[in-house]
Amino acid sequence: MPSDNELTDLDVAHLMADAARTAILPLFRKSDLTTDNKDSQGFDPVTIADRDAEQAMRAILGEHRPEDGIWGEEFGLQSGPSGRLWVLDPIDGTRGFISGTPTWGVLIALSDGGAPFLGVIDQPYIGERFTGAPGVSIMTGPHGPRALETRKTARLAESILFTTFPEVGTPQDRAAFEAVAGQVQLTRFGMDCYAYALLAAGQVDLVIEAGLNAYDIQAPIAVIEAAGGVVTDWMGGPAHQGGRVLAAANPALHAAALEVLAGY
Amino acid sequence: MPSDNELTDLDVAHLMADAARTAILPLFRKSDLTTDNKDSQGFDPVTIADRDAEQAMRAILGEHRPEDGIWGEEFGLQSGPSGRLWVLDPIDGTRGFISGTPTWGVLIALSDGGAPFLGVIDQPYIGERFTGAPGVSIMTGPHGPRALETRKTARLAESILFTTFPEVGTPQDRAAFEAVAGQVQLTRFGMDCYAYALLAAGQVDLVIEAGLNAYDIQAPIAVIEAAGGVVTDWMGGPAHQGGRVLAAANPALHAAALEVLAGY
Repeated sequence: MPSDNELTDLDVAHLMADAARTAILPLFRKSDLTTDNKDSQGFDPVTIADRDAEQAMRAILGEHRPEDGIWGEEFGLQSGPSGRLWVLDPIDGTRGFISGTPTWGVLIALSDGGAPFLGVIDQPYIGERFTGAPGVSIMTGPHGPRALETRKTARLAESILFTTFPEVGTPQDRAAFEAVAGQVQLTRFGMDCYAYALLAAGQVDLVIEAGLNAYDIQAPIAVIEAAGGVVTDWMGGPAHQGGRVLAAANPALHAAALEVLAGY
Repeated sequence: MPSDNELTDLDVAHLMADAARTAILPLFRKSDLTTDNKDSQGFDPVTIADRDAEQAMRAILGEHRPEDGIWGEEFGLQSGPSGRLWVLDPIDGTRGFISGTPTWGVLIALSDGGAPFLGVIDQPYIGERFTGAPGVSIMTGPHGPRALETRKTARLAESILFTTFPEVGTPQDRAAFEAVAGQVQLTRFGMDCYAYALLAAGQVDLVIEAGLNAYDIQAPIAVIEAAGGVVTDWMGGPAHQGGRVLAAANPALHAAALEVLAGY
């Protein structure tokens, strides 16, 4: 049970996302200002942004959900008596962040220790937030709120596929990805967690990645499932521990992609 | 000479970019609403957005610069007695547009018939605009205005490289790209014209592409050169007719990348 009955879990998640925005935005696109000619230290501002944002989110949990556990990319696992677990990635898409792209995100997920049931994908620079929870599937952004609903595309040949390949994964992972890519209408690259948000928003049909950590995928799972999509590993099993991940807009398309991936 | 002395060329370019935003934004991320289950026609909304935006920009030129020529992706060349030429791409990054990414853009360039001297890269959804002209190098966006200035990175090993490969280019083009990619610190994919905007903004160091049209590159050339960067083809010659393009943050880095590319 929540330890602060005045706020719902979703309220707490939004407070956390707000706090992460406040911590990160002053550091975004400021690497040249702080590093100047010290290019060898050009990655430091990212670490500061990551750490500040995770600390800000942990402080909110400490105040409003002190009995819950926390697992964050930067500061690891802190267990709690409730058995519930908040899984945090303060900046998913670090390489995008340091390059100034607007497609990295803050990831927040909540579970009972297994699969996540609440997720937030937040893009602070654009001011977009994609939220999924029981009975909740919505995005907010600069052009107003909008319900999230995945597409009905049933065939690979009609699908838009996103991935972070060729930047991640083993050669075998990549071969599996390319086997699917060879059958879809359009393949796009390099969107980090934003690809999952676009899948939930009904803009794209498939995301295939490998080498993920749990904190990379738990928030996307909750957001996509609440919007009608399916997220598993490449064998059709649970994906919330990371690894090889297949996200699809609906069960039929998921089955079609899984059939290709299962050969690898 | 301008035929409407009340507005500068830059004023006219901003009016055009504003009009393109107005035409495009109602159609962005609306493909499912208009095509529903007719997936085979899923590309139609893009064509409408492209055409509406280019018509809106042409109407502004007709009113304020009737003696200038226009070359647009959708409606071709319309010559004018002034010898000046506006080069327009109403939506650069069509595949990104139909996928819902926020990294496509409206491109506007002005030349005396050769290399462009004024350019605008506009991202309507985020509300960002990158402008380059004689004495002008600025971006505006949701977090305020900022001067554009390219990075001083002098060595490939310290560079961030962007490209649309592996989606475009011949195998030989790609081999050349990969020769440079093998020497840089970080390579990122799939940002369309937004990569050039990030180069002008001092966020990344290199963009390498092939198979470009003139309307894909003329606005980026003007924006990047005003911010201190260098844009040429892979032989070091003019790039404003498109083809193989190398954009670099500064002359030293441009020379280093050119040395690698010239072998292909």
